[in-house]
Amino acid sequence: MMLKGSSTKMLLLLKSSATSVPKTFIQSTCITYCRKMSSIPKLDLGGIYPPIPTPFDDKEEINFAALESNVKKWKQLPFRGFVVHGSNGEYTYQTPEEKVEVVRKLRSWVSEDKLIIAGAGCESTRDTIRMSQAMAGAGADAVLVVTPFYYKNSMTSDALCNHFTQVADNSPVPVLLYTVPAFTTIDMSVESVVTLAKHPKIIGIKESSGNVIKIGHIINKTKNEDFQVLGGSASYLLQSAVVGAVGGVCALANVLGEDVCRLHELIKAGNLDASAELQRRLIAPNLAVTSKFGVPGLKFALDKFGYYGGKPRSPLMPLGKEQQELLLNDFKEDGFLK
Amino acid sequence: MMLKGSSTKMLLLLKSSATSVPKTFIQSTCITYCRKMSSIPKLDLGGIYPPIPTPFDDKEEINFAALESNVKKWKQLPFRGFVVHGSNGEYTYQTPEEKVEVVRKLRSWVSEDKLIIAGAGCESTRDTIRMSQAMAGAGADAVLVVTPFYYKNSMTSDALCNHFTQVADNSPVPVLLYTVPAFTTIDMSVESVVTLAKHPKIIGIKESSGNVIKIGHIINKTKNEDFQVLGGSASYLLQSAVVGAVGGVCALANVLGEDVCRLHELIKAGNLDASAELQRRLIAPNLAVTSKFGVPGLKFALDKFGYYGGKPRSPLMPLGKEQQELLLNDFKEDGFLK
Amino acid sequence: MMLKGSSTKMLLLLKSSATSVPKTFIQSTCITYCRKMSSIPKLDLGGIYPPIPTPFDDKEEINFAALESNVKKWKQLPFRGFVVHGSNGEYTYQTPEEKVEVVRKLRSWVSEDKLIIAGAGCESTRDTIRMSQAMAGAGADAVLVVTPFYYKNSMTSDALCNHFTQVADNSPVPVLLYTVPAFTTIDMSVESVVTLAKHPKIIGIKESSGNVIKIGHIINKTKNEDFQVLGGSASYLLQSAVVGAVGGVCALANVLGEDVCRLHELIKAGNLDASAELQRRLIAPNLAVTSKFGVPGLKFALDKFGYYGGKPRSPLMPLGKEQQELLLNDFKEDGFLK
Amino acid sequence: MMLKGSSTKMLLLLKSSATSVPKTFIQSTCITYCRKMSSIPKLDLGGIYPPIPTPFDDKEEINFAALESNVKKWKQLPFRGFVVHGSNGEYTYQTPEEKVEVVRKLRSWVSEDKLIIAGAGCESTRDTIRMSQAMAGAGADAVLVVTPFYYKNSMTSDALCNHFTQVADNSPVPVLLYTVPAFTTIDMSVESVVTLAKHPKIIGIKESSGNVIKIGHIINKTKNEDFQVLGGSASYLLQSAVVGAVGGVCALANVLGEDVCRLHELIKAGNLDASAELQRRLIAPNLAVTSKFGVPGLKFALDKFGYYGGKPRSPLMPLGKEQQELLLNDFKEDGFLK
Repeated sequence: MMLKGSSTKMLLLLKSSATSVPKTFIQSTCITYCRKMSSIPKLDLGGIYPPIPTPFDDKEEINFAALESNVKKWKQLPFRGFVVHGSNGEYTYQTPEEKVEVVRKLRSWVSEDKLIIAGAGCESTRDTIRMSQAMAGAGADAVLVVTPFYYKNSMTSDALCNHFTQVADNSPVPVLLYTVPAFTTIDMSVESVVTLAKHPKIIGIKESSGNVIKIGHIINKTKNEDFQVLGGSASYLLQSAVVGAVGGVCALANVLGEDVCRLHELIKAGNLDASAELQRRLIAPNLAVTSKFGVPGLKFALDKFGYYGGKPRSPLMPLGKEQQELLLNDFKEDGFLK
Repeated sequence: MMLKGSSTKMLLLLKSSATSVPKTFIQSTCITYCRKMSSIPKLDLGGIYPPIPTPFDDKEEINFAALESNVKKWKQLPFRGFVVHGSNGEYTYQTPEEKVEVVRKLRSWVSEDKLIIAGAGCESTRDTIRMSQAMAGAGADAVLVVTPFYYKNSMTSDALCNHFTQVADNSPVPVLLYTVPAFTTIDMSVESVVTLAKHPKIIGIKESSGNVIKIGHIINKTKNEDFQVLGGSASYLLQSAVVGAVGGVCALANVLGEDVCRLHELIKAGNLDASAELQRRLIAPNLAVTSKFGVPGLKFALDKFGYYGGKPRSPLMPLGKEQQELLLNDFKEDGFLK
Repeated sequence: MMLKGSSTKMLLLLKSSATSVPKTFIQSTCITYCRKMSSIPKLDLGGIYPPIPTPFDDKEEINFAALESNVKKWKQLPFRGFVVHGSNGEYTYQTPEEKVEVVRKLRSWVSEDKLIIAGAGCESTRDTIRMSQAMAGAGADAVLVVTPFYYKNSMTSDALCNHFTQVADNSPVPVLLYTVPAFTTIDMSVESVVTLAKHPKIIGIKESSGNVIKIGHIINKTKNEDFQVLGGSASYLLQSAVVGAVGGVCALANVLGEDVCRLHELIKAGNLDASAELQRRLIAPNLAVTSKFGVPGLKFALDKFGYYGGKPRSPLMPLGKEQQELLLNDFKEDGFLK
Repeated sequence: MMLKGSSTKMLLLLKSSATSVPKTFIQSTCITYCRKMSSIPKLDLGGIYPPIPTPFDDKEEINFAALESNVKKWKQLPFRGFVVHGSNGEYTYQTPEEKVEVVRKLRSWVSEDKLIIAGAGCESTRDTIRMSQAMAGAGADAVLVVTPFYYKNSMTSDALCNHFTQVADNSPVPVLLYTVPAFTTIDMSVESVVTLAKHPKIIGIKESSGNVIKIGHIINKTKNEDFQVLGGSASYLLQSAVVGAVGGVCALANVLGEDVCRLHELIKAGNLDASAELQRRLIAPNLAVTSKFGVPGLKFALDKFGYYGGKPRSPLMPLGKEQQELLLNDFKEDGFLK
């Protein structure tokens, strides 16, 4: 049974205020215990989310009209919700004010049954806490918190666990961990994830490394926790679902939303042959809008599929002619474009 | 329908001699075309293979008696065959003569319905060709050819395609590509694999990167070829099978052969829930005998499970006490040891 | 002959307004040509700079009193100037307002003959331009602009050249490129650096990869440009100076300022034996406050040497007891502590 | 004072037999102590060595006539000796028999005052010991032993120290450690090198990582040992010499032997300005025959400079037309070709 995001959130907020913000890990553990006792309904994360890109105009200002028009179309699709300010959102290129404003607008455009998961990760713990609170205030149902990454050698398991615990202790809404080594070069050990999964406000992870061994391992080790795993790409929706992932945050869903949702449905229905065939066909188009051509590729594809894509902010550069052809080819070869 | 390895092999050998060894890629392509025409039966690779370790005595000499005793037990299990001189076999620590002798002995111990896939990869093309021929002579049904890797920057797509084509042109038995970036730091592009898959003697790939996106991608792009993908580990047997892998070469199968074969059967039967549960439980034990503790871990585990493990050749060192405890724990936590 | 930073800056500002901000690379090249014609005096960067850490109080707020007290001591030493908001300054953990305020205060404390080089690099080009302008307004003599790094695959030579050119075109003060792959995983090709060195406002590079081959290569290829290279660490001051680097930005100079400056003097005096001996002795202490124990190590060492170090901002964690001992040992072994 | 290789070798051999081969590290340490007492003259490694390539004919067989003709020219130059079967020698592409034969021939062509340092590193300790003994028998003055590298995670400090100690204990001639992470991805910690430097038969290291921080660090920590460091490339001869390296093994010396030897002389004479200028000019040509175009580039350059280069063994491929042009350009730009 799927719960409305709002009621869960209310319960969690209630709980937060009732217990006062926990400051230490011992306290957190205690709270975990309490949760198991009182059976607070969890936020059901199962489903597909597009990690929406941020449209810019010719002066690189946020084009809210274009965003609204895109959202109108995406609302028609059976998405579980929206991820905003993930890596595809060029979140590192936006000011804090811009980031909050995008979430506020988005909340005003989509109904409560669509979850809004907002990226709130910053390099420092204090900035991340502030951003989580701001995102909750702007209407986010949960925040997505990327591993800090600049001081790589210092991002030990202890440092990461401490960071996420502090953030979760102080976030008004549930927290999803977010690992994306392609951009951060930081991965978290299974042990760290398992430790953090015990925190009552840490409800899941968006795993964008593509490591389906780790995904299976995490799910095995957290089987007694309220902890859900979302894959981070349409390239391994099926491969992660079979070991227990509940859905995916898929750049490709911005462009081929119908197909990605259909794949999710086929998997849920246990239709393995059709799932396998569709999964395999989606890989090349998905790589084209992610690892191969990045955000500029995704934006170019949006333009081709009737959405507003436009240009990225500099230093990202729009695709050149040759890259555009290669991208289109990746969609054509598997029959998603003529 | 599964074919006996021997009849296929005979046909391929026949074909080799009939056409004379092709020297150029153009000729190879022509042969590919011919194969499609004459529908040569292919070698069905589907199933589980233990990549067998090489037992050594106290003076680091090969202990053939111990190997025979291990093989006797493994023969009882429903393996599709054996991989010998993969990374788990310490193949880089053996002389060419030792490597051939191991295969010859193994062939004398196992019946023809068990495939013997023998590692024949060397750094140079000429050594690889010689080793492929020697392995075929010793009774191997197919050879496993790892990407050369010392001169990393020079191992371009062209260099790799040229290498594998020459090897396949001159190998008396079918060839499996072998990518294992954890040891070689070399991966092959999907494009290279797809090109090589057209060669009549290149019948598959052992993909040991754990990249199930690439596995799905390769299977999609080779759907019109006689080309099969084997996963390289028990950690992602299910995750690779759902996108089309036909089986796996699994270090863990040396130790938990029954469980790994059962997982393969569950997958084939489409029993997703039981597959998922078993797959997840096998991850920690599998990591323990692969990435975590390597060959010394695998050998220690063999000793614990009634096989002969013994010590690796130096510079590999046997597990220390603390590592042994950690390894055993990884088996205990998921119920594979008490 | 060394010029005062201010006069150079004035000339550059004059030049900027006179020519209007160049928008394209062709225009930039033209300006380069003009500069060579009109022989604008360049900023002499030669010497040692401590990349100053930012002190925080127990609530993780910037402790300006502590900073002033540190600066008072550093002012006594023959530094060429100060680098502020480099990696050692925890710049990624500060708000834009904090960053500007630190520079404003620093300018008020140090005389004009000490250069202030202020980190202004942000992920987006627009934020970097704004920060460069703010830093110039706060009194910086030059800005240090790190390579953007989040979208790694997209940071091609073209993207980086375009980014730095736009920033330089719009910065009121000269620009130093900053490469620090240990934190960013991004390096710039020699070709890109050589291209950018032609820009009239790009006067040098802080090279923190430790790659003294690249340093020599850059200096060879920019011998006809007004372009200076600063090494990024006390571990290779001598090794980079002998191929033409003019000085260094050295974390260790915060702690052992006198020794690092003495090394610079010995090198300038051509005293190779004494340079070699001191250089070698400085490596272990330098590694201790950089790659080995990072900013927390540097702050701990400051406390030990009579400065204010204090704690880093979370998620950085202060050194544990054992790490403290190891760090002290690295200073003791080479005679810098008893 | 420089000693003839042969007398030193004799003394060491004498010593080996006198004490019986040490088997444990404790024994080794004891011997180290003895050495200090008895002041055995050490092998002076100071100078320039070309790491000679192995010429092949059209059938990829070793072309000994071509090798002899090359050696005749190299003998005219003031090299300290020759490194054979380093990475530039395509040693991984040769059989053990071929490797020994090359050394035997080389010894017959060059007089005793030229050191022959022969690569003897294999993956297993036992093969390395055998090869060291064979190389000594063929006339090598010392062996160069690369870090084993296939089982990367298992190559801990303990494993490497144990490997090199066993090899040194059993080698009839002195041992040089060899680290070349570009090919092996394995580096050794300074601590490991310092430990191994105490072994009486381990007389130095060929450091090919280009890390001149590590070189200075090692020299500082081994200042009380008979231990010498050779840099592994002409790109940082000066940068490593100033912190104490005694010379270099330089691929470029095969082609521009006179220039590389001149650089070494300028450095020894303390002529810093001329050293710096020549060092900088040598970087681009050196990169062209190493990291940029590898062994195929070196062989092409040999052909251009009046030596026999020829083709590498497959899977290495000869340079294409475009690469040839780029390589020639790197020599032309700095005035080494017209």
